[in-house]
Amino acid sequence: MPNYKHGGNITAFAKEIGADVSEVIDLSSNINFLKPHINIDFNSLDIAPYPNYDKLEHAIAHLYQVKQTELELFNGATTAIYTLFRELNLNHATLYSPCYLEYKKAAHTHNYSIEFIDRFEHIEQEVRENSFVIFVNPSTPDGKFYDIEKLMKKWIEKKCTILIDESFLDFTPFESAIKYLKSYNKLYILKSMTKFYSSAGIRVGALLSNEKNIKAIKEKEPLWKISEFDSQYLQAALKDKTFVKKAKAVNKENRALLNELLENSTLVEKVYPSTANYILIKLKTIKAEELQKRLIPYKIMIRDCFNFDGLDNTYVRVAVKDKHSIERLREALISP
Amino acid sequence: MPNYKHGGNITAFAKEIGADVSEVIDLSSNINFLKPHINIDFNSLDIAPYPNYDKLEHAIAHLYQVKQTELELFNGATTAIYTLFRELNLNHATLYSPCYLEYKKAAHTHNYSIEFIDRFEHIEQEVRENSFVIFVNPSTPDGKFYDIEKLMKKWIEKKCTILIDESFLDFTPFESAIKYLKSYNKLYILKSMTKFYSSAGIRVGALLSNEKNIKAIKEKEPLWKISEFDSQYLQAALKDKTFVKKAKAVNKENRALLNELLENSTLVEKVYPSTANYILIKLKTIKAEELQKRLIPYKIMIRDCFNFDGLDNTYVRVAVKDKHSIERLREALISP
Repeated sequence: MPNYKHGGNITAFAKEIGADVSEVIDLSSNINFLKPHINIDFNSLDIAPYPNYDKLEHAIAHLYQVKQTELELFNGATTAIYTLFRELNLNHATLYSPCYLEYKKAAHTHNYSIEFIDRFEHIEQEVRENSFVIFVNPSTPDGKFYDIEKLMKKWIEKKCTILIDESFLDFTPFESAIKYLKSYNKLYILKSMTKFYSSAGIRVGALLSNEKNIKAIKEKEPLWKISEFDSQYLQAALKDKTFVKKAKAVNKENRALLNELLENSTLVEKVYPSTANYILIKLKTIKAEELQKRLIPYKIMIRDCFNFDGLDNTYVRVAVKDKHSIERLREALISP
Repeated sequence: MPNYKHGGNITAFAKEIGADVSEVIDLSSNINFLKPHINIDFNSLDIAPYPNYDKLEHAIAHLYQVKQTELELFNGATTAIYTLFRELNLNHATLYSPCYLEYKKAAHTHNYSIEFIDRFEHIEQEVRENSFVIFVNPSTPDGKFYDIEKLMKKWIEKKCTILIDESFLDFTPFESAIKYLKSYNKLYILKSMTKFYSSAGIRVGALLSNEKNIKAIKEKEPLWKISEFDSQYLQAALKDKTFVKKAKAVNKENRALLNELLENSTLVEKVYPSTANYILIKLKTIKAEELQKRLIPYKIMIRDCFNFDGLDNTYVRVAVKDKHSIERLREALISP
């Protein structure tokens, strides 16, 4: 099976199609195509001393309007996920699916039995008491934002521990689940800092909860875990307020264009309405792999969603990128 | 208790003594005072994509002459320590003490009972069967290199799991315990990449073992954990072969100067012979805190070793830095 089926590996894709990496239009990745303005001379940073995370924690706490004692930083959201599964040490997880694949892997790794709830068809399904509920909002790979008010009530009634993954919330105008932290003590909220701030290469994620929960996690964490480079990058990124406005507006605008293009394609059976920087489609007559093949002359890489629970090889995720990429995709889709 | 007692926090020390951070002579830190030449334009690095660690792993495997499948990278050696205590899931640890303080913390965190063996007085002491043996070589905070041949035999007879921490071995001319990997399957070797390469602000450490052990650890690790900035920095640092020779030679030379200075000081009862970039001393008539006070007019920060197991507040660690720092220390020590 060719590597490009799994998306993300742009180097392998470029090699396989005989193109240069710089020519590839990567619509498989969910990283913001716009970047914040960073005014740091990285080469003059003194990275000899041990890092201190006070300023970074302060900036992130300020961004999400929580106390510094209500958050713990990790070298990436995925590390936070693994740590939480491990430290909670529960035995049952409920994954509202499809969702980010590392959740299934983390649950398996830490010996949780898993119940998958189909968000599309059976979101009202009962949850098991004391389960560890994972809800990604906006969701992946479709980008739907859910008002979780009713779900929260149900989960709390069943005494579940809850993780709301808001890795893509910064792209939307919607309110965070942070507002529930005060009223329920088994709630965690995950913020991946790298999607919206266009920096998967830096490893910073934040887990938010009440002080007591954060203290319990912090006690088992090593003293240092985040790169000083990454800390400086993110602090600078968070200061660029123009970027936040612009990135939200342009992604929204381009998403509308991409949405229209996909709605009008004869290859597409269904376009899932998205609030994030990617759109999920169900193909009509061809498989994801065939669509990917058709896009190779245009050097466009897409994400075959065959390995998401509840989806199959007729589902594809397409990233929102710049207008040029959308035009290239348009040409590719209307070609005979 | 003032912050500067614990060393390392140069910002807090500078503030406390009313100096600028740039004026402080930090003899409390064990980071190489020489830096490799890094020829990278960090500002032009594309950190948007997810990182791939293949090249970095290859470079580190080449450095230590192991296969890529015989190492796992972590965001710092301390993270590797915590992971190993957790994943081995044993119940008893033997710490040859004094040693790096995070070992005790990691053992406590993961509910190991601990036996401390005094390296100075009772290194021949018997170890418990199946214990997790931690041996730092060269040792901290004294920098002694031990020929562990006999110890290895004893530990193997007792079926111990063994971790040799070689975070400071790069400063010495001595041979790594890697040579034992082939003959014993419960051996791990830890390499902190940040001490010798002068970069505690970047978070990269490597754990070496046989393929089977590394595979078992890798299975429970997240996909991404190291910063692309850090990866690029370290790859560049490892290419600077002139640095390796120069850093070893200059640290050796300056260590000899520092050693002589300390040997000749009337304040010092004993100087511990070191092979690393720091020297442990026992004070004669004053306490570490008093010595630190005497050094404040010279803006020199040292490491009070009161919190190392087996040591007390008459022990001090002094880092090997440049000749100017040694001269400043000389002035301070001979002052009335």
